[in-house]
Amino acid sequence: MKRTKTAIEGMSRRALFANTGKGAVLAGLAGAAAGPAALLGVTTGVATGGAKLARASEGVATVAPGQLDEYYGIWSSGQCGEVRLFGVPSMRELMRIPVFNIDSATGWGITNESRKILTEGLTPETKKFLESRGGIWQNGDAHHPHMSFTDGTYDGRYIWINDKANTRVARIRCDIMKTDKIIEIPNASDIHGLRPQKYPKTKYIFANGEHRTPLPNDGRDLDKPENYHAIFTALDGEEMKVAWQVIVDGNLDNCDADYQGRYAFSTCYNSEEAVNLEGMMSKDTDWAVIFDTKRIEEGLAAGDYTEMKGVPVFDGRHGSKYTRYVPIPNSPHGINTAPDGHHVVVNGKLSPTVSVLDVRKFADLFDDKIQPRDVVVAEPELGLGPLHTAFDGKGNCFTTLFIDSQVAKWNIDKAIAKFNGEEVDPILEKIDVHYQPGHNHTSMGETKDADGQWLVSLNKFSKDRFLNVGPLKPENDQLIHIGDGGMTIVHDGPTYAEPHDCIIVRADVLNPRTNYADLPNPPYQDIRDLMASKGVDYLSAEDVIREGNKVYVFMHSYAPNFSLEQFTVEEGDEVTIAITNIDDVDDLTHGFTLANYGMVMEIPPQGTASVTFTADRPGVHWYYCQWFCHALHMEMRGRMLVKPKGV
Amino acid sequence: MKRTKTAIEGMSRRALFANTGKGAVLAGLAGAAAGPAALLGVTTGVATGGAKLARASEGVATVAPGQLDEYYGIWSSGQCGEVRLFGVPSMRELMRIPVFNIDSATGWGITNESRKILTEGLTPETKKFLESRGGIWQNGDAHHPHMSFTDGTYDGRYIWINDKANTRVARIRCDIMKTDKIIEIPNASDIHGLRPQKYPKTKYIFANGEHRTPLPNDGRDLDKPENYHAIFTALDGEEMKVAWQVIVDGNLDNCDADYQGRYAFSTCYNSEEAVNLEGMMSKDTDWAVIFDTKRIEEGLAAGDYTEMKGVPVFDGRHGSKYTRYVPIPNSPHGINTAPDGHHVVVNGKLSPTVSVLDVRKFADLFDDKIQPRDVVVAEPELGLGPLHTAFDGKGNCFTTLFIDSQVAKWNIDKAIAKFNGEEVDPILEKIDVHYQPGHNHTSMGETKDADGQWLVSLNKFSKDRFLNVGPLKPENDQLIHIGDGGMTIVHDGPTYAEPHDCIIVRADVLNPRTNYADLPNPPYQDIRDLMASKGVDYLSAEDVIREGNKVYVFMHSYAPNFSLEQFTVEEGDEVTIAITNIDDVDDLTHGFTLANYGMVMEIPPQGTASVTFTADRPGVHWYYCQWFCHALHMEMRGRMLVKPKGV
Repeated sequence: MKRTKTAIEGMSRRALFANTGKGAVLAGLAGAAAGPAALLGVTTGVATGGAKLARASEGVATVAPGQLDEYYGIWSSGQCGEVRLFGVPSMRELMRIPVFNIDSATGWGITNESRKILTEGLTPETKKFLESRGGIWQNGDAHHPHMSFTDGTYDGRYIWINDKANTRVARIRCDIMKTDKIIEIPNASDIHGLRPQKYPKTKYIFANGEHRTPLPNDGRDLDKPENYHAIFTALDGEEMKVAWQVIVDGNLDNCDADYQGRYAFSTCYNSEEAVNLEGMMSKDTDWAVIFDTKRIEEGLAAGDYTEMKGVPVFDGRHGSKYTRYVPIPNSPHGINTAPDGHHVVVNGKLSPTVSVLDVRKFADLFDDKIQPRDVVVAEPELGLGPLHTAFDGKGNCFTTLFIDSQVAKWNIDKAIAKFNGEEVDPILEKIDVHYQPGHNHTSMGETKDADGQWLVSLNKFSKDRFLNVGPLKPENDQLIHIGDGGMTIVHDGPTYAEPHDCIIVRADVLNPRTNYADLPNPPYQDIRDLMASKGVDYLSAEDVIREGNKVYVFMHSYAPNFSLEQFTVEEGDEVTIAITNIDDVDDLTHGFTLANYGMVMEIPPQGTASVTFTADRPGVHWYYCQWFCHALHMEMRGRMLVKPKGV
Repeated sequence: MKRTKTAIEGMSRRALFANTGKGAVLAGLAGAAAGPAALLGVTTGVATGGAKLARASEGVATVAPGQLDEYYGIWSSGQCGEVRLFGVPSMRELMRIPVFNIDSATGWGITNESRKILTEGLTPETKKFLESRGGIWQNGDAHHPHMSFTDGTYDGRYIWINDKANTRVARIRCDIMKTDKIIEIPNASDIHGLRPQKYPKTKYIFANGEHRTPLPNDGRDLDKPENYHAIFTALDGEEMKVAWQVIVDGNLDNCDADYQGRYAFSTCYNSEEAVNLEGMMSKDTDWAVIFDTKRIEEGLAAGDYTEMKGVPVFDGRHGSKYTRYVPIPNSPHGINTAPDGHHVVVNGKLSPTVSVLDVRKFADLFDDKIQPRDVVVAEPELGLGPLHTAFDGKGNCFTTLFIDSQVAKWNIDKAIAKFNGEEVDPILEKIDVHYQPGHNHTSMGETKDADGQWLVSLNKFSKDRFLNVGPLKPENDQLIHIGDGGMTIVHDGPTYAEPHDCIIVRADVLNPRTNYADLPNPPYQDIRDLMASKGVDYLSAEDVIREGNKVYVFMHSYAPNFSLEQFTVEEGDEVTIAITNIDDVDDLTHGFTLANYGMVMEIPPQGTASVTFTADRPGVHWYYCQWFCHALHMEMRGRMLVKPKGV
């Protein structure tokens, strides 16, 4: 393939001629043909005006030492593979939750308990593939964190997040803020968009398989793109099993669900079903695809599906009774349901427009009483590169404009009026953000309790906004106050790759535990069962049990002591070490690091953690507590003595 | 071993009777015997007074959107294994630098270039040990980040940091802010304290092997602690090779160096050389050990050493001409050289005192003209649990008190006067911090340019200072303004495990590059050489070269394109993919994720990155750019087609 020139030119052409619902119009895309930097949308340092910064000096985003934030921010980390908890409005990172990554601090990916979670949901093919690669994935690409709903608002039980890199969905339990389930999605390739059902109570997690691949992807149809398919998946979020899947046309991008509990919908780009950039941009229209979960459940009962890898798969391509395809201009990206319960905003990406759908029209569409485009009730032109839209719960929307490096505030009712021919400008205000915003989110904005206080713009480039830290720059999460009806940037928040998406949750929604005592469905059940089967009480354990070449070392910890200050094994033994932290002082996590053996674990208050390894390195090896616990923390240690073979 | 009671009691006894330089006195340790919580030093919510918070509302720590910080903070991450760059005073995390961890975002631990850095400095024994474990360590415990010096102040070239978990020292090059060398320290066990030589220009990196083990640690002397040894190491920081080592008595803890370029010194706890908590605390006095680098260099020239694992090792135990042991009360921990160039503060940990040494007396001590304790010129009693001391460059010191949860500000001259019998209180002020401070650091405080503006207290417990995020709480890095002669807490900074230590560097000291063009000693030299050897120009590469079952896939990237939009290999091939990012727009990093194959890499502007793997999974596998780069970022992708065996 020859490089880029035609593709870049292709984009220029497309960007210059962007569609609206009423047909192709010239978008007046200033600078779009001015060369690569302009096409990147990398602006060169537009300063926010002094007036906009006034609020920062008024202290709106300041949370004084010792004061608590009013909201939890739940941040994805993109290709970092973790989830981050923030405080809003301070924008302080409060915690990292290991999910798809390997975490040196907690031993996530190393402990028996984490490795079980990381492997139990893999397909047999992937398990086999990973056999010679350490047994687990070492990377993930975590995009969209979303919380469980009851009656259209967050209920504080779970957070789900996708992994685009290795086709997984993970769940975090909010009582202990730890990942408790991860499953690989069969048949699909590379999970992207993810959203939970909002009503009546989250049952389904909708997950988009972005890329089109052969089905099954086992070597057949290698270069026959016409036989490739993208797959939409509904998980049972409680069971963490696939409920059903739907084959669709095009590539799936983002998704959302309605407030009535019936429909889910996804954006689709590459309706051309091409396999290169030029092909993907050859048509001016793509679509949003709508899924009727009630019809699908009826189809499930009627057996109207094909089973693939143990999962019922529906054919939802054009003509299916389970789906409808609504034409949308130019590679739509984000799709967001408004808190009014009726409107869905589809963001045009390569079109300067967003398309507003009315869910009250979907039943007629599925009954073929109206045409697909009849569900579009507004299509305002906002600016260049609309990607995602957030809501204030007062009828207003905030849409990120990637190429313009702006956020546009606009009003749904005015947009509908304009669509119906009235002379009205739906755009209320625009502000510059720094730079190239992707996802955005408002406080409680994807729930019926959207409160219109705060807006976060997750910007993909920070460039000159922070001290220079080398070729790799942080992203810039900007906090924008919207509580007074305007938009005022009050905080620049640098973050490591990549705060792809976030949600902002009122603090009272979450109430995590402070220790693991009497925890339901504990991650340590297996190891405690094993201890019990050998007659060991986990609370007072100080036992070394040998069974052939397997050695079980059971301890408890109590600051600043491990109950065993030494133990002896033989070279080649398979050693399992399990430790229960019997401390229950708030914040008193212990750790266990076995030096020069690569073993590390977090041991939460009243929890148990374990590792298993082969003792194939003779000598004296110290283990120590790596989570600071006491004035004598450094002295909290012991020795593993490994006798050489044949001695 | 029976659990804890005796140890806890032991600590109470010791804490109650703490030494000063003049002999044992009752420290009046209120509450020390009140039970585990008090012994932990976990205070239960002492609020900072309203007056102390006033400055926060004055905006001292506020850095408005678009404004830059005045200092870089260089933070360790403890058991996370990475290094973090902060902005001070905003306390915003600007960047993470993968070091001892595996990083999903950059592919650190996965790319060929990072795996070379992670493996080339390992001992043959460790390489062999890791063979069945993926070839690299998956964890590290990074404690003490310190920058290279010229003439007693930072020169912005390098940062070094230790790994306690797997006995390593790493170096970060500051031009691109990436780790470029990691070496395992032979003979020693579990590197803890680390400091660079300050004068005339950093040659040596001093590194404490904390734990005592048999020498060599190959299975001999397993349970003969009398034959265990701790090892002090001097690295050549430029070559990243061990220059020499010294066997010492006791366990090594922290270290520092003088401003004259001759002496290094380490704290020692467990002078008892015991292997359990009770034994380690049985004596009331431990020591600081001083190393005379000039004498050691003379010994090196004279061949007065034993070679172990290719390294010259000196016997520096009591009686050696290379060392002197200065008795210090009760398990001293931190050791910090004052910017006045003459005084060294040794922090008592289990004694309420700090001991001040005068380096001008060290020559006489080594010449046996004076006794070890004669180098102590002050020993003020500050409070419970003094761990580390920072400096304002004006003769004042800031010492963290772990058990008291306070910082004590005191004056060196006054402490010396008191030691000499004058009636003067060296303590100027104390403030509460939240809670249990470990390391602290002042702006430029470990250099002769200490400027007395900011103090950071790295607190090990945060408890109720932040929204509850579950059983695992963040640490709390508190920023304290000291520029007006007082101490005012202006920011609570939650951070993930564990900001063990930090330095605060004036912004003008660092000036990193913005791309990799013409980079000296580039990490990608090997892969570019390989490409050149096959006649491939890395800037225009779009080549698939097969040699037997080895396939080389050479591409370049240019937003939003990879130069190869597809390539085909056969099941079982060993595939090497190398990509050069020819974009040079500031902040325009590309990435490469090979979905469902676990391959991921960061490709910096004008840099090249590569991965090698076996293509043992047939089918269509999409690769995509995972570092947001362009409005068509999602479309920046291609296909690897893997033909099944025998087809």
